[in-house]
Amino acid sequence: LEVSLAELLKAFGIGAAAVTLGVEWVDWLARRLSLRRGARGPLKEVLFFPSPSACVEHLYAPAGALSCSCPLPHGVDTPFARLLGHLLSAGATLDLCVFSFSNASLSRAVLLLHSRGVAVRVITDREYMTIVGSQIGTLRRAGICVRHELSNAVHMHHKFVLVDGKKLLTGSLNWTVTAVQSNKENVLVTEDPDLVGPYQEEFCRLWEASDPTSQNQSDCHQGTAGSQ
Amino acid sequence: LEVSLAELLKAFGIGAAAVTLGVEWVDWLARRLSLRRGARGPLKEVLFFPSPSACVEHLYAPAGALSCSCPLPHGVDTPFARLLGHLLSAGATLDLCVFSFSNASLSRAVLLLHSRGVAVRVITDREYMTIVGSQIGTLRRAGICVRHELSNAVHMHHKFVLVDGKKLLTGSLNWTVTAVQSNKENVLVTEDPDLVGPYQEEFCRLWEASDPTSQNQSDCHQGTAGSQ
Repeated sequence: LEVSLAELLKAFGIGAAAVTLGVEWVDWLARRLSLRRGARGPLKEVLFFPSPSACVEHLYAPAGALSCSCPLPHGVDTPFARLLGHLLSAGATLDLCVFSFSNASLSRAVLLLHSRGVAVRVITDREYMTIVGSQIGTLRRAGICVRHELSNAVHMHHKFVLVDGKKLLTGSLNWTVTAVQSNKENVLVTEDPDLVGPYQEEFCRLWEASDPTSQNQSDCHQGTAGSQ
Repeated sequence: LEVSLAELLKAFGIGAAAVTLGVEWVDWLARRLSLRRGARGPLKEVLFFPSPSACVEHLYAPAGALSCSCPLPHGVDTPFARLLGHLLSAGATLDLCVFSFSNASLSRAVLLLHSRGVAVRVITDREYMTIVGSQIGTLRRAGICVRHELSNAVHMHHKFVLVDGKKLLTGSLNWTVTAVQSNKENVLVTEDPDLVGPYQEEFCRLWEASDPTSQNQSDCHQGTAGSQ
């Protein structure tokens, strides 16, 4: 078979056109998909408190939502309901670093996650471990790992949570009833890895620094033993 | 001129190849540029406390930086120095919404901004207006507008600042010496409009709601009159 240079070039041109058009189309498709992701971007949300009271039973037990007959308004998307929803979205881990924890509704959420097999770690302030209404004892008795600042001189004043190591909730809100229902408070929610990353590192740093055995062993057994 | 269908198709193929290759190259260039913009993105930073002590004189008076002979380490970029730097970057407005404010170094920064003509507005907690060491009286005597929660029942527990309406600093840190030098605290810094916007709206909402005249007039005169 004899082929001239001109014909070879033309054939090459057609082949190149077909390939680049194909590449272009795949590329266009990929960009469409990535643009759609980009426009949505990582989750970011701001919640302001006090939160109006509303029934949140459906968040704890989605199946039993219709059966709740409490007198609170139903089906209202309050800041507290959104906070609870973010917490209950945890599927693998919940790292909680909060100064004071006396809110029973939030305690119930943490216990529910623990019963579902989510690995829960709690760091709290030393002084606020055992104050009246503290939920720390309840968490420990359920077998949840709790650590506190070892020094007497300083406060562990953070109020942040990491959900599955990829969603951060941080702000002014302590886990008390007053904070949720009365105070002016804010919680910023983000899945931006540039923000989540430093908080996850800080959590791990504090977790190790608050290890009561000082040998970097888990104090889970101490927790289940019922020590408060 | 007589052209066969086959030749026409081939010529069309070559032309299409040239055009798509050109488009591909321009597109590649555009994506390179936009990716570079995306990577830089809006400012985001996380500061953790306690902050090591270091000299911050150069931040108040850049010209006199070399002349400071205090015994603190010099030229160290601490979390507190970065916080101060963000505050002192204000050129037009500083909206401060903080539960307790007794840190003299931060008060000095706010007074400096006020003297430079930056419009400063402060919202603080009612109970923490006049506690020992509170800087609120000093700010008011200098003519800075300060408002507080009017209700006795709730705490204004926020700890956030808006710099020029486009940079947000929020977290657990109250403006006290203990918070900066001793406690475990966090401050998230961002220029993401999706996060800054809601906080700016919250500030304006609280500012109006805390107006003591209830007629949405500024209480600046009240402030300059020296009432604490």
